[in-house]
Amino acid sequence: MDTYFRTRKSIRNFSTKNIDNNLIKYLIEAASYAPTTGGMQLYSVIITTDKTKKEELGASHFNQPAYVNAPAILTFCADFNRFVKWCVASSAQPGYDNIQSFVAAALDAVILAQQFCTIAEMQGLGTCYLGTTTYNPDSIAKVLNLPDYVVPVISVALGYPQPEATVDSNAEECKDRLPINAYVFDESYNDFSTNDIKRLYAQKEQREDNINFVKENNKETLAQVFTDVRYPKSNNEFFSKKFIDYLRSKKFL
Amino acid sequence: MDTYFRTRKSIRNFSTKNIDNNLIKYLIEAASYAPTTGGMQLYSVIITTDKTKKEELGASHFNQPAYVNAPAILTFCADFNRFVKWCVASSAQPGYDNIQSFVAAALDAVILAQQFCTIAEMQGLGTCYLGTTTYNPDSIAKVLNLPDYVVPVISVALGYPQPEATVDSNAEECKDRLPINAYVFDESYNDFSTNDIKRLYAQKEQREDNINFVKENNKETLAQVFTDVRYPKSNNEFFSKKFIDYLRSKKFL
Repeated sequence: MDTYFRTRKSIRNFSTKNIDNNLIKYLIEAASYAPTTGGMQLYSVIITTDKTKKEELGASHFNQPAYVNAPAILTFCADFNRFVKWCVASSAQPGYDNIQSFVAAALDAVILAQQFCTIAEMQGLGTCYLGTTTYNPDSIAKVLNLPDYVVPVISVALGYPQPEATVDSNAEECKDRLPINAYVFDESYNDFSTNDIKRLYAQKEQREDNINFVKENNKETLAQVFTDVRYPKSNNEFFSKKFIDYLRSKKFL
Repeated sequence: MDTYFRTRKSIRNFSTKNIDNNLIKYLIEAASYAPTTGGMQLYSVIITTDKTKKEELGASHFNQPAYVNAPAILTFCADFNRFVKWCVASSAQPGYDNIQSFVAAALDAVILAQQFCTIAEMQGLGTCYLGTTTYNPDSIAKVLNLPDYVVPVISVALGYPQPEATVDSNAEECKDRLPINAYVFDESYNDFSTNDIKRLYAQKEQREDNINFVKENNKETLAQVFTDVRYPKSNNEFFSKKFIDYLRSKKFL
């Protein structure tokens, strides 16, 4: 069974076939048996399939190909709204306007999302996470009508894979993983020397696709593609401020 | 296959049988093919099996039964340390001392953790999340020697289930889930009226185990057990302050 998980991959090229809304819900429900903090289910999922709505939401995800190609987008939210309303309706005083509560709800939402992806993939569907979700929580909230105590944390582009998607470049990308001693430690974290780092990243740097990636971006090193192009400091800081403002506006800070 | 996921459950009662350290690593490696932000693998996992080390770490998890009973504890960390060191070793200027970078790394760590739990459960192992991880990141970091840019976000108690664990109360608890229209929305979030809330939580409140839970805690409503006993405001605020201080000390804020 673990072989299955070693060969899985994200899908960005979807066929035009729509997914039955009831199937999506059936699979989310199956995923809901994943663990959740204190059994509280501090999450919600918004399904976007309506064409107009999907176009409206697209800007928040920079209309990246996986978003545009997918027939359905699932937005997984950390959600204390329902629970807080239940407390109020039950003569209980909620105390969840703080970061620890946000973290608990975010964990619940991500665990649900990952369990959903696993189940959906096993049913032959293709999934791709959209990490852009936390960049633009404000505009996502506006389109999806999210109330206080609800924070979108991760989205999933969902669809049936195109047949050729099984041999597309994602299959290779999927195998681009560090050796296990880069990220697993016995008993205690062993921090890395510069030589350790060079050794652990050598294989990644020597991959043909990554060498081309450096060339295409006119950079000297693969790390520079990340720091200067993909995840630059200025973007991280800009979107961090937005995210913190959003957490505050939704009462978690 | 989705039936399997609907009947899974967390395990808190483990047999005394130890788990081969190589098996744990093999399963983590299989889980590493789960999606990760930009292929960066912004996580690390510390395996605790040494008796003395495990006792030392226990206080951080309030020595809860699942922790004490498990032969192995896995601490999943959001980790930008390795990546930042790689940038520095590659003439690249890292810009990851911000909350957006922490969020990306936390997502990676939780996705890895959930994929690990799924794979481990399919191999017949038992898992239980320890949500206490973000309460005491400071003392966990001290025991596990975590450097800057490393934040423990979730832990897994791991072991072989006791035979009777398959029919223990967790099996019931696992089925305590809200109806799907409580947490899944088409196109747009539909906020809840008090009547909606009462209807959606009715089944949960009427479960025999939850009625007993209210009585045992001398409360009037199930929600009060959460607000007054399990997740009270004062605790949430205390641990929120600690968590924010920790994020700051590890350079994410």
